[in-house]
Amino acid sequence: MKNIEVCLSPELIHLYELVDKTVVIVDIFRATSCMTTGMAHGVAEIKPFASLEECRAMKDQGYVTAGERGGKKVEDFDMGNSPFGYMDEKLKGKKIAVTTTNGTVAIEKSKGAREVIIGSFLNKNAIVKYLIEQPNDILIVCAGWKGRFSLEDTLFAGALVESLYEKTETTCDSALAAQMLYDREKNDLFTFLNNSAHAKRLSKIGITKDIAFCLEENKYDVVPVLKNGAIRLA
Amino acid sequence: MKNIEVCLSPELIHLYELVDKTVVIVDIFRATSCMTTGMAHGVAEIKPFASLEECRAMKDQGYVTAGERGGKKVEDFDMGNSPFGYMDEKLKGKKIAVTTTNGTVAIEKSKGAREVIIGSFLNKNAIVKYLIEQPNDILIVCAGWKGRFSLEDTLFAGALVESLYEKTETTCDSALAAQMLYDREKNDLFTFLNNSAHAKRLSKIGITKDIAFCLEENKYDVVPVLKNGAIRLA
Repeated sequence: MKNIEVCLSPELIHLYELVDKTVVIVDIFRATSCMTTGMAHGVAEIKPFASLEECRAMKDQGYVTAGERGGKKVEDFDMGNSPFGYMDEKLKGKKIAVTTTNGTVAIEKSKGAREVIIGSFLNKNAIVKYLIEQPNDILIVCAGWKGRFSLEDTLFAGALVESLYEKTETTCDSALAAQMLYDREKNDLFTFLNNSAHAKRLSKIGITKDIAFCLEENKYDVVPVLKNGAIRLA
Repeated sequence: MKNIEVCLSPELIHLYELVDKTVVIVDIFRATSCMTTGMAHGVAEIKPFASLEECRAMKDQGYVTAGERGGKKVEDFDMGNSPFGYMDEKLKGKKIAVTTTNGTVAIEKSKGAREVIIGSFLNKNAIVKYLIEQPNDILIVCAGWKGRFSLEDTLFAGALVESLYEKTETTCDSALAAQMLYDREKNDLFTFLNNSAHAKRLSKIGITKDIAFCLEENKYDVVPVLKNGAIRLA
């Protein structure tokens, strides 16, 4: 049976074997929710960068630049980090270069894995189906907030562990805890997460609408996969 | 109002300010449970060491040596890491040098804090009372297992957050998650924790009795405090 583990922060990733794993990157508020939305709306490719400078430089290669720092859009970039921005008709067939505070760092640190895919509530069932069909052990990497644990990412990790319960096994306490937290709160994630540190930060900068959207389940039937440094559809 | 935070692993401690904090070290299975037990049974001083070699060298200075690696007693040491060992009449008034896989590492990494105290279910109420009376913000540091998240330490952190609910405030998602986990499982910690990774490891080496003991609440009314590198009673 496949093994499943949860890494609660990119700062803990050195404690996990990556080589033979399929890694699921989770940054619910908002990087992986944005990537899922973009892929579902016909974006051709999303290239993640940990650093602002590298991301900015992609403009010369015809990329649309997207990104935030501390939750806010980078001033001279084409777009910020809202899933609604990723629905724009004009992005169809385009390539986007993106950098965010947490999500793109998590992707960068997971590059040693056999496969890296992008998960969010928006494409939960597609991810579950993909994970069941593929052969590798699974590591869910929560992007967190500047290295710290975050509730929303952990709750989604718990949702995956729960959905994969009969198809996987685990000896990972983080996976057990994530599943318990999701099981306790799944009936009203929005109300519950309004108490989370990150939701409070995002509310302050006026994006409650994004939070509600990022918690909608199974809007999109897509599995974004990282290959040669770029995210495309599986 | 005092702030309270939870650090889920010593590997995340660099993300927290230590300087003005009172840090509570938590290693339920079994370092901080042993230290609490020893202090309650009249041990004069317990000196923690992260390394085996430094700990062993203390024998020449009249210290009793105690410790484990991977859960098992270090062969040439006087005692292992069972709370029952710390009840021995012969230890009254003695000094113990101790090293363990997780707990002593967490102590080592917390040395920048204003104050470091030793918490466990065994002295829960004494710790809560102490934390209410002292003036500093609070950081609970879970020792985990080789850097990874552990359920038993997180549940105890949650128990403290719950007990201090009306006396503290928090914007820390780890604190919220820990409290939720404890709230969900507090009525039968033993059964629940028998599923945890660490309990399974300990069961394999035959110390189920230790696990049950380490989950007993409020057996001892002591607050062990780290001062100048040694743990003594407050």
